[in-house]
Amino acid sequence: MEQRDREAIMEIVGEEHFTTELIDLVSYSYDGSDHNHRPEAAAFPADTAQISLIMQLANERRFPVVPRGAGTSMTGSAVPIKGGLVLDLVRMNRILEIRIPDRQVMVQPGVVYAALQKALAPSGFCFPPDPASGKVCTLGGNVATNAGGIRGAKYGVTRDYVLALEVVLPDGRVVHTGSKCMKSSSGLDLTRMFVGSEGVLGIITEITLKINPKPQASCTAIASFATLQQAGQAVTDVMCSGILPSVLEIMEENTIRVLRENAKADLPDVKALLLVETDGYTEAEAAYGMEKVVAAFQANGADTISRAKDKQESEKLWTIRRAVGSTSGSLRPNNLSEDVTVPISKVPQLLEGIQKIMQGQPYPFVIFGHAGDGNLHPKIMFDGSDPQQVREVHLLADKVFQLTCDLEGTLSGEHGIGLAKAPYMNLEHEPLAMDLMRLLKRTLDPNNVLNPGKMALDG
Amino acid sequence: MEQRDREAIMEIVGEEHFTTELIDLVSYSYDGSDHNHRPEAAAFPADTAQISLIMQLANERRFPVVPRGAGTSMTGSAVPIKGGLVLDLVRMNRILEIRIPDRQVMVQPGVVYAALQKALAPSGFCFPPDPASGKVCTLGGNVATNAGGIRGAKYGVTRDYVLALEVVLPDGRVVHTGSKCMKSSSGLDLTRMFVGSEGVLGIITEITLKINPKPQASCTAIASFATLQQAGQAVTDVMCSGILPSVLEIMEENTIRVLRENAKADLPDVKALLLVETDGYTEAEAAYGMEKVVAAFQANGADTISRAKDKQESEKLWTIRRAVGSTSGSLRPNNLSEDVTVPISKVPQLLEGIQKIMQGQPYPFVIFGHAGDGNLHPKIMFDGSDPQQVREVHLLADKVFQLTCDLEGTLSGEHGIGLAKAPYMNLEHEPLAMDLMRLLKRTLDPNNVLNPGKMALDG
Repeated sequence: MEQRDREAIMEIVGEEHFTTELIDLVSYSYDGSDHNHRPEAAAFPADTAQISLIMQLANERRFPVVPRGAGTSMTGSAVPIKGGLVLDLVRMNRILEIRIPDRQVMVQPGVVYAALQKALAPSGFCFPPDPASGKVCTLGGNVATNAGGIRGAKYGVTRDYVLALEVVLPDGRVVHTGSKCMKSSSGLDLTRMFVGSEGVLGIITEITLKINPKPQASCTAIASFATLQQAGQAVTDVMCSGILPSVLEIMEENTIRVLRENAKADLPDVKALLLVETDGYTEAEAAYGMEKVVAAFQANGADTISRAKDKQESEKLWTIRRAVGSTSGSLRPNNLSEDVTVPISKVPQLLEGIQKIMQGQPYPFVIFGHAGDGNLHPKIMFDGSDPQQVREVHLLADKVFQLTCDLEGTLSGEHGIGLAKAPYMNLEHEPLAMDLMRLLKRTLDPNNVLNPGKMALDG
Repeated sequence: MEQRDREAIMEIVGEEHFTTELIDLVSYSYDGSDHNHRPEAAAFPADTAQISLIMQLANERRFPVVPRGAGTSMTGSAVPIKGGLVLDLVRMNRILEIRIPDRQVMVQPGVVYAALQKALAPSGFCFPPDPASGKVCTLGGNVATNAGGIRGAKYGVTRDYVLALEVVLPDGRVVHTGSKCMKSSSGLDLTRMFVGSEGVLGIITEITLKINPKPQASCTAIASFATLQQAGQAVTDVMCSGILPSVLEIMEENTIRVLRENAKADLPDVKALLLVETDGYTEAEAAYGMEKVVAAFQANGADTISRAKDKQESEKLWTIRRAVGSTSGSLRPNNLSEDVTVPISKVPQLLEGIQKIMQGQPYPFVIFGHAGDGNLHPKIMFDGSDPQQVREVHLLADKVFQLTCDLEGTLSGEHGIGLAKAPYMNLEHEPLAMDLMRLLKRTLDPNNVLNPGKMALDG
């Protein structure tokens, strides 16, 4: 970027919505991952028209542009690794329309996930995906990473709810994809080309989401198992039992120990815990689901099965579950937090395999995640200021990704690829699939101005 | 195609799996639409390798190839409008793997929809989409058109269940997309680029589908309304009531009359009927849903509300509903059958608008469809041997599509575009969206050998 580029951007967004202050640029060099790189400037566009002008300029002048929501990405997808301009979409935070009779909402990309849920609450509707960072993350980021959450087994992920998009293309043109209808088979599916594309194909400036009536009843239970195999078989049996639990979480022994020792959680000293929720419009439906779950737990020799008696007890269990991330993360200055995913029946193999990889290593680690859809979050704690630790931890991560792909798994269930998993893409995807992804990127962004360096698409 | 091309194909598939017989070519010139064009040859490949060799040849020698399932397309998407070779995938009809613990099945494209459901039945699982042609249509066609069905309001469409694909590209290379996991955010979404692409980007040779446990309980009811407005408001109120009905079908007066007069259906002489099903794992859940539905019907002045007392009574209602297509179709030699879709709340406007367009016209017509997801099937009966009738009916269709798009609708909810709706694509999609679709087509199929002439992508 040259001085005249900075001036041109300032002209477009207004002086007060543009910064090259060091303190700002340092902030924008990070996201939720361990990666960082400083941009040359950051702008806060007010609307689609401004973004369109900025992209016309960037495409002509060939400087990188990285769109950014709340910066909660776990993979470096929001890190401006090639410098250039960060577009912070914080000002585009309006809920444009809530159309309950049409079962949809239109939002700008900077709307915080929790703000949408709050706005929907009075109607009894909700946006079913539920990323862990929901209190702060933005819907633009959710769509760009195809975010998931603990209710994926029953309710799917963000992709399943995106009906239509407005997108600014790398050359500044503005395209409207999809339809305001519940379903459409009209032409090639441009909408889902942009869902999960991590800002490398276009900047999402308006989102139409399908919404659901919120289930009113739920049951929660927790069960402990003496072996991982039993817990794993219980997961499989639940998923085969004829119902879909709304949540089916697993925590292995390290996770349990960390919660007992560091969050004073009242948990038994066991090899695995399964935390489960069933739901429905009626108590009867939720209870029936829980009967099936309990039967599967009993059949697999659960040591203890404890059902929450009321909202308060169930909330206590979810609080424990939610504490895993921050409690474990505080054990060391840095952590490597992954979201490898395998076919449901292979969850125990992945768990055991990761435990084996970590055996004898000096690094604290936890493994927890969404067993109901095969998505685990192994998290390895280390000190990033020690280059040897960094090297060693990355070698461990290599092994985890190799194991995952050996089990027919995917590098990412819900976080995306970004920088962190770009080096592993060829473990999962065959060369031709990578070629096709690169062809798409090159075709839509021939000058590689949009979020370059991500997803192994630059080769 | 030259003689040497025919010989090369015969070499690949074997003499007995290749035909240029007139009787065969005539059969392959049609699908479920009014369009037809004869291919120069048809082949019945046994596997992916043969299709790959054929596409290498076609791409080199520049002859069109049209993949074909059961030929039930309503839009001409299976009609070889530019001649060339039809690839009938009938021999690729194996269910490769049923993995209940992993909640997925792997099938070849020629597997008949109903055959999959039958194979899944013992496990209590099902593939939730339910196209009306399910007894004969193939899963390859379902994926290629993003097929829907009457349960779309609650269970979505084919797109929502496709996890992974094997696809032969226009140049013969074979790519594997997606993952065998319940969810993945790993790279650009190649899988959904091919879903609904009607065979213009690649030939789908293997499909991995997510499956669901089948709900065990259901309630069915039918209600009559004195005005379309009341029925329309009842639909809106049901969709806002906090539950999702598994089926919510509407039939307007012409449809009701045709069923009474031509199928001896015991139906009242009213302006609109709503046929609804609620479901769940438990009777209580289905009954609760039905209470909400009945309340919405009563609040909107339903003349009669009749709940099916048992499976037999409910089956009787569904038999009546299923008879609409064939009964109305038999009134004249030809019919134009559409699947326009609008936001749910605009269903009454679309119904009234179509009735108005048809007012005073000499053509029998019916309008029915999936009100719960805004998808209507207007069907106009005429005699295709009379050029004036053909002209007039197409002018009426023009008006229906214009009205649909004026109501923020889509040309197709579940049938696709093919030839029938290609001329209307620019009513729904802005020029840039069409440009992007054409860019994708050109990028993946630069020689335009795969199903050319479809979806308005050749321009």
